[in-house]
Amino acid sequence: MAQENTGERAKLLAILPFPEPDGFISRIESRHPWLKVVWVHQSYGITTWDANEKIDEGLFKDATILTTLSAIPKPHLAPALKFIQLLPAGVDHLLAEPIFQKEDVQIATTSGIHAPQIAEWVILQILAFAHHFRYLSARQDEGRWVSHGELKSTAGPVRDMTSNRVGILGYGSIGRQIARVCHSMGAQILAFTASPRPTPESRYDSGFCLPGTGDQEGRLPVAWFDGLDKASIHNFLRQDLDVLVACLPLTEKSRHLIGEEELEVLGERGSNGLGSGTLLINVARGQIIDQAALIESLKKPVVSGGLRGAALDVTDPEPLPRGNELWSLPNVVVNPHVSGLTDQHEKRYLAVLEKNLARWEKGEPLLNLVNKKKGY
Amino acid sequence: MAQENTGERAKLLAILPFPEPDGFISRIESRHPWLKVVWVHQSYGITTWDANEKIDEGLFKDATILTTLSAIPKPHLAPALKFIQLLPAGVDHLLAEPIFQKEDVQIATTSGIHAPQIAEWVILQILAFAHHFRYLSARQDEGRWVSHGELKSTAGPVRDMTSNRVGILGYGSIGRQIARVCHSMGAQILAFTASPRPTPESRYDSGFCLPGTGDQEGRLPVAWFDGLDKASIHNFLRQDLDVLVACLPLTEKSRHLIGEEELEVLGERGSNGLGSGTLLINVARGQIIDQAALIESLKKPVVSGGLRGAALDVTDPEPLPRGNELWSLPNVVVNPHVSGLTDQHEKRYLAVLEKNLARWEKGEPLLNLVNKKKGY
Repeated sequence: MAQENTGERAKLLAILPFPEPDGFISRIESRHPWLKVVWVHQSYGITTWDANEKIDEGLFKDATILTTLSAIPKPHLAPALKFIQLLPAGVDHLLAEPIFQKEDVQIATTSGIHAPQIAEWVILQILAFAHHFRYLSARQDEGRWVSHGELKSTAGPVRDMTSNRVGILGYGSIGRQIARVCHSMGAQILAFTASPRPTPESRYDSGFCLPGTGDQEGRLPVAWFDGLDKASIHNFLRQDLDVLVACLPLTEKSRHLIGEEELEVLGERGSNGLGSGTLLINVARGQIIDQAALIESLKKPVVSGGLRGAALDVTDPEPLPRGNELWSLPNVVVNPHVSGLTDQHEKRYLAVLEKNLARWEKGEPLLNLVNKKKGY
Repeated sequence: MAQENTGERAKLLAILPFPEPDGFISRIESRHPWLKVVWVHQSYGITTWDANEKIDEGLFKDATILTTLSAIPKPHLAPALKFIQLLPAGVDHLLAEPIFQKEDVQIATTSGIHAPQIAEWVILQILAFAHHFRYLSARQDEGRWVSHGELKSTAGPVRDMTSNRVGILGYGSIGRQIARVCHSMGAQILAFTASPRPTPESRYDSGFCLPGTGDQEGRLPVAWFDGLDKASIHNFLRQDLDVLVACLPLTEKSRHLIGEEELEVLGERGSNGLGSGTLLINVARGQIIDQAALIESLKKPVVSGGLRGAALDVTDPEPLPRGNELWSLPNVVVNPHVSGLTDQHEKRYLAVLEKNLARWEKGEPLLNLVNKKKGY
């Protein structure tokens, strides 16, 4: 939205879990003289937040732009608010916030900035399973040099990625970077999206993408699938997948997208003796998967239709309670929602914020603008 | 070498650690009617081998072509031998064999067929260090969901590959596939070769390369380095490397290429406070590195010039003896020479053998022909 020069500066309120990066305010204010920046260092680790208790409500009153992890005001506290640049890449934690439904408030995520490290986490898990990392680590702990024969008979053969078919549920920025790396290792990529992508234009991802990463043009998949009805999902799950990665947004439609039936469909591969079982990886949200059904599938042998294994960076609920069976299943990796961590995070978030301030000033469409109807 | 039709068939003797793949002999004999194939299934796991004890010497007598893991005859036993297609990718175990020095015996390796899985093993190790896989695995064993703060203060921050500089010592098929995958994750690649590669032609790798993998044209490195003298090596090691991968052949010149002095040069990065220490990865041969010096460097803190860590698929000697310090250093991964394992191995080896039989028939230069002067 182009700004008129009214003599009064609009307020950009930043409530963030880190202090102002060196020179940020002066850089932004000199680049955008119509803006006044107020930076509030919010202590880290807060994922839900009550503005009334933790922060001076008055800060929101005259803010035109807000950028934050989770300090979302009630609408009456922020009458001037027009644009929220979120620090997170997803908005599921905001769906219940009334301000989310206000038509004149644009909300942008940082979708895309987490893609490199989350893709790395996924690749790490795929390779750790394929190359028996934990088995070999335990042998190292014993100080014992195992033979190839013992490795093979105990842990199984190594299947490298050149023979793998990798299904990607949700072909956004994260899925595309997973695809890029898997493709570079010789794997075949199969993409699944909610809506059909029949044309080059529809396959293009216009969100933030770090140069040299991802698959912005959607050129890597050997096949595309779509549709959120059971038949469409099941058809995708029947594509002989060695690996299935969930990296789609959590919405009402994707909640328990992978349930008992879907796990059974995935298991047909093993029970038909056609493959070695699917490795299921979740870097989306725990609720995408029916966790009780997942646990049952992980306890079944592959030849009886069980999964090969699972690598879960997200669980339902979080933290995963002590004593939950997932912690101790031998074919499961559980991590405490860490795949998005990187020391490059702040740098990339600032890149998105600065791009969007420039777009806002010129009245251009914002990068990573949330579609409120779709909920992501 | 073009074959005259003398009415008598030349013998291809295969002494290999697996049984004849379905239809192999009939396929080869119908494709090359001048060839008669004899297949001997050698039991697995033999890496040095005395032909006199284990096999009927007479088998070698009339063999024109031999393909084997390590069943190398003394020259007088194989007077007709013209071409050895090795199953291994390296020839260091053969340098002492008299037949290696016979001018009229061409020796080809399977260099290139191990690149996909060895590169995967290397990527796995890089990511396991960067994303604290072993630390998080231990927390999973405790059934404990650690906070981001605890992870960071205990294990350190996650540095993703987008900020990494990866030095590759030996830019052959394995180094090129490591480069491809690291590059797809946004890392910068620095290549080191024994001889200079100033031109596009000199950067081209004519060896076997699985389509869709590697960097046959040598386009990925941001910088090339060469020379086996100390000054050249040290210059390369001073390039602010987050990761250094040794994937060069073992020769008299590369033995202990990384010694005490070189580890000190690598350590300057940490002791100058300029970086977070280098991760050293060895998938070549244990003797490339002076192991005693390596252990000392791994025991030093990074700020005192120590390495960040090491991932070793090869050691000196092998097996690594029980009780060796490497087994228990917390910043070391030791694997029992397994990075080359894959269930795709036999398929790719046969692809090289068949390509070379076709080249031999047409008198074309063999793929992966060993340069006996260089020793690889």
